[in-house]
Amino acid sequence: MGRKIVVIGGVAGGASAAARLRRWNEEDEIILFERGEHVSFANCGLPYYIGGTIQAREKLFVQTPQGIRERFNIDVRVLNEVVQIDREHKLVRFRDMTTGETGEQPYDIVVLSPGAKPMIPDIPGLHEAANVFTLRNIHDTDVIKTYVDESQPKHATVIGAGFIGLEMADNLRERGLAVTLVDMGQQVLNPLDPEMAKLVEQHMKLNGVEIRLEEGVAAFEGQGTRLRLTSGDMLQTDMVILAIGVVPENELAKQSGLELGFRGAIQVNAQLQTSDPAIYAVGDAIQVKDRNHGFATMVPLAWGANRQGRLAADHINGQAISYDGALGTSVIKVFALTAASTGNNEKTLSRLGVPYKAIHIHPGSHAGYYPGASPIAIKLLFNPETGVIYGAQTVGADGADKRIDVIATAIRGNMNVRDLADLELAYAPPYSSAKDPVNMAGYVASNIMDGLVQTLQWHEVDDFHRNGGVIIDVRDKVELQAGAIPGSIHIPLAELRDRMSEIPLDREIAVSCQVGLRGYLAARILTQHGYSVRNVDGGYKTYSVMAAERAHLLK
Amino acid sequence: MGRKIVVIGGVAGGASAAARLRRWNEEDEIILFERGEHVSFANCGLPYYIGGTIQAREKLFVQTPQGIRERFNIDVRVLNEVVQIDREHKLVRFRDMTTGETGEQPYDIVVLSPGAKPMIPDIPGLHEAANVFTLRNIHDTDVIKTYVDESQPKHATVIGAGFIGLEMADNLRERGLAVTLVDMGQQVLNPLDPEMAKLVEQHMKLNGVEIRLEEGVAAFEGQGTRLRLTSGDMLQTDMVILAIGVVPENELAKQSGLELGFRGAIQVNAQLQTSDPAIYAVGDAIQVKDRNHGFATMVPLAWGANRQGRLAADHINGQAISYDGALGTSVIKVFALTAASTGNNEKTLSRLGVPYKAIHIHPGSHAGYYPGASPIAIKLLFNPETGVIYGAQTVGADGADKRIDVIATAIRGNMNVRDLADLELAYAPPYSSAKDPVNMAGYVASNIMDGLVQTLQWHEVDDFHRNGGVIIDVRDKVELQAGAIPGSIHIPLAELRDRMSEIPLDREIAVSCQVGLRGYLAARILTQHGYSVRNVDGGYKTYSVMAAERAHLLK
Repeated sequence: MGRKIVVIGGVAGGASAAARLRRWNEEDEIILFERGEHVSFANCGLPYYIGGTIQAREKLFVQTPQGIRERFNIDVRVLNEVVQIDREHKLVRFRDMTTGETGEQPYDIVVLSPGAKPMIPDIPGLHEAANVFTLRNIHDTDVIKTYVDESQPKHATVIGAGFIGLEMADNLRERGLAVTLVDMGQQVLNPLDPEMAKLVEQHMKLNGVEIRLEEGVAAFEGQGTRLRLTSGDMLQTDMVILAIGVVPENELAKQSGLELGFRGAIQVNAQLQTSDPAIYAVGDAIQVKDRNHGFATMVPLAWGANRQGRLAADHINGQAISYDGALGTSVIKVFALTAASTGNNEKTLSRLGVPYKAIHIHPGSHAGYYPGASPIAIKLLFNPETGVIYGAQTVGADGADKRIDVIATAIRGNMNVRDLADLELAYAPPYSSAKDPVNMAGYVASNIMDGLVQTLQWHEVDDFHRNGGVIIDVRDKVELQAGAIPGSIHIPLAELRDRMSEIPLDREIAVSCQVGLRGYLAARILTQHGYSVRNVDGGYKTYSVMAAERAHLLK
Repeated sequence: MGRKIVVIGGVAGGASAAARLRRWNEEDEIILFERGEHVSFANCGLPYYIGGTIQAREKLFVQTPQGIRERFNIDVRVLNEVVQIDREHKLVRFRDMTTGETGEQPYDIVVLSPGAKPMIPDIPGLHEAANVFTLRNIHDTDVIKTYVDESQPKHATVIGAGFIGLEMADNLRERGLAVTLVDMGQQVLNPLDPEMAKLVEQHMKLNGVEIRLEEGVAAFEGQGTRLRLTSGDMLQTDMVILAIGVVPENELAKQSGLELGFRGAIQVNAQLQTSDPAIYAVGDAIQVKDRNHGFATMVPLAWGANRQGRLAADHINGQAISYDGALGTSVIKVFALTAASTGNNEKTLSRLGVPYKAIHIHPGSHAGYYPGASPIAIKLLFNPETGVIYGAQTVGADGADKRIDVIATAIRGNMNVRDLADLELAYAPPYSSAKDPVNMAGYVASNIMDGLVQTLQWHEVDDFHRNGGVIIDVRDKVELQAGAIPGSIHIPLAELRDRMSEIPLDREIAVSCQVGLRGYLAARILTQHGYSVRNVDGGYKTYSVMAAERAHLLK
């Protein structure tokens, strides 16, 4: 005889679990409760429907309740909210949101997939504001789109520079609105480190988004048409998107006495069981562990929800599974730019106090002699003793997603930075170079491990110079027009061997070029001649990204 | 004191070796001999310069002799051919091809990077033909481009359907020529299996290339303007590109008594040393072993040449290296299509007699609801007992290269098909789906390993039916308009549970849908009701690719 399996939440994690449960077993009675009107919709597509890139609303529905019933023989109950899990009697109590009627549904197993909801800050005037929106589901989407279509707002304020904030800023610009992005933090897109996020910020500014960092909203005035910012500035606006983050939808779990963890997320074991083994939990609402270092975190992204839903179904059907943590691999399109990351960033590694090295490179997306190549900024973080790869970040117009996927795969395979050099990747001029950018990252990191070169990071350069270090710029003369590190001495690489006498042997030396390649060569030459030398990692290109920032700090 | 290191051949492998040698050591005397006029040119770009995609000839020169001299302090001698390696006296004898003078250069170590040259078949009339070209270097490129520019040929015949043949066919069409592609084999692009290559063939035909397979040239008549084909047909043509394959440039190695192996390729150990440990060999001319199964082969592709050049330099400088074989990862752009592969194809596995399973899937390049998604045909080959990944092939308009790179990385990391399901890849709607195509491949393969489903391959379907098997087509009615497997019975998936009585329990059953997903679900339903059932792998989409072929065979 089949079991009674109740799935609570019908989007990514819940829908995946339900479908997989059925594929395992035709006998089980599977009941799917969804509080909203829709199941299995395209969360990640919502900003693009508002922006008009996705034109047909029906495209947002990956599956319909009817489709799931027919295909999977699942009892789908939309607009039905589970209000209580009675663990003692093994039944859930639900409320039909249309009729208001309540009912009980016995269960053998529950899969809980409640998701996460937008964080709502406590700001004066927020509740009186009529034009403040959050974006989580189809209903929210319809409300925002209708407002844009009908009220024809001219200016939008997006509060929060995370994934949803940036995608909304992009899509509202697409609709012709002026957009101001406000965030309390020092950078956009927290999964990236500041010098990588700065590239995204610059690109957004190029596309007309006004960006105000280290700035919050102190009060909503005039029904939300005037925002008093924490700096004291006033901002006139026609609409506000509130996207400062999400919190786990944990009420049901909490009320049912399930253990909660990191920021209220639901605790699960490696089999995705909550503190009650008859209740599984998956998706945005659960606590996961960082794959590299094991600390507790939340990764409210679609990949994990889908994966966990499937794994929970596998375990319910007797499979030995182990969900062993998240890398938090992510990617976002911001206008014409792609920003992607996997694993730990430098901020996290620094906070954890683990030994790490960072490298920055700027290879082309494909062979430079084939049209259309564009640079990808790549940052790789690794353990300099073991070569273990901790994480990577890429920003570029093309091919940034591919390189993060390859590195995410390498991390999953417990490969180290030397292995990156050895990856036999597909090369033809339209796709890559004979040394793929990932190979290059592996080479650069290996050189550090092998002691062939020491590096100076972008944020160390100014101090290095202040403390008496000599910086040699080995680029060609014409390249200096684009700017140079203040105080650097110019000796082109081709002249370096002949002009070595100009370089003092008793000083600390740093060499710098445009992206780090020639600097490496210069460092090798000088090292072999007895100099103590470091190569400016990522070259002038990485250094200069934050130059404006430094100038700002000096004011 | 430095050593004398002679590098023979200044393109991919030789140039990489020389540059890395210098980075290791400023003291070594490095002499680079190159028979041609150019070093370090963009081999892989040559067809695109002829086709006009690459417009500036100087883009083909990644480095100049002068640039290498200045940057790397390497004694570059172009137009100088090494004619003998005197191993006893440890010197090479060379001839200056401009002056005709000869000389000697002592060495401690040699790095041999002679490359491979186009295979020239022995066909009557070939030597009298004035319009037959091969493509290896800048000179060949200039000759072909000048001929196309000045003689304005209307029709070109490309002999050989490998990488260079297909790229030349594409680029000559780009120039407005009518193109006929002739190949003795049964398919284009041998790294792919026939049902995958057929997709490329169809796309080339759509782009106006006439393709004649199982056809060779028996004789060149009229100075090469009339080709008598092996079928007896005559072909009028204005020019011929001969691209039937390459052979290792092994004369110098042979003459020097170095051991040769597979098809005359130079034998090297895992440290890339020839049978004389003072002589290394790298690049297209060497024998490599297949990474999965260890058999001897040649992989004349740029990635390996660059990698080997660097590794040889590392070993010369005391590093412990091991070049442990090639996957032969490759990618080609053919008009708007990308075809890529890594590892072993089914033809190879079948020949080796190793146990394997193949799966075919057709996921979208990214989320279907976001504009611009296109299907990628993916074939994955693996060991059904261990899950070891043997190889993969992808064909699609977008994202085919990314998925092969991910799978090539997984193979290098000794990951298995279950690990593919667990890869945490970057997802946002413009880039992928919440289950990436590679995840999907992992899921489908895992399901086979777990015994959840058995499959029927495209080439087994007709026999299955002939031998009394019942084929159930579970697609929706409207989909049948595009064609169906002959003899199949139509029961839409949504009706399957209710109409099961129509399906005989005592017969072998196969289910089929469009791409294999609904078929899998149908197979799960029927299996759990006691049927012996197999899912047509890749669905009607994979089956129908070769349908025209089957019709042809039945004539």
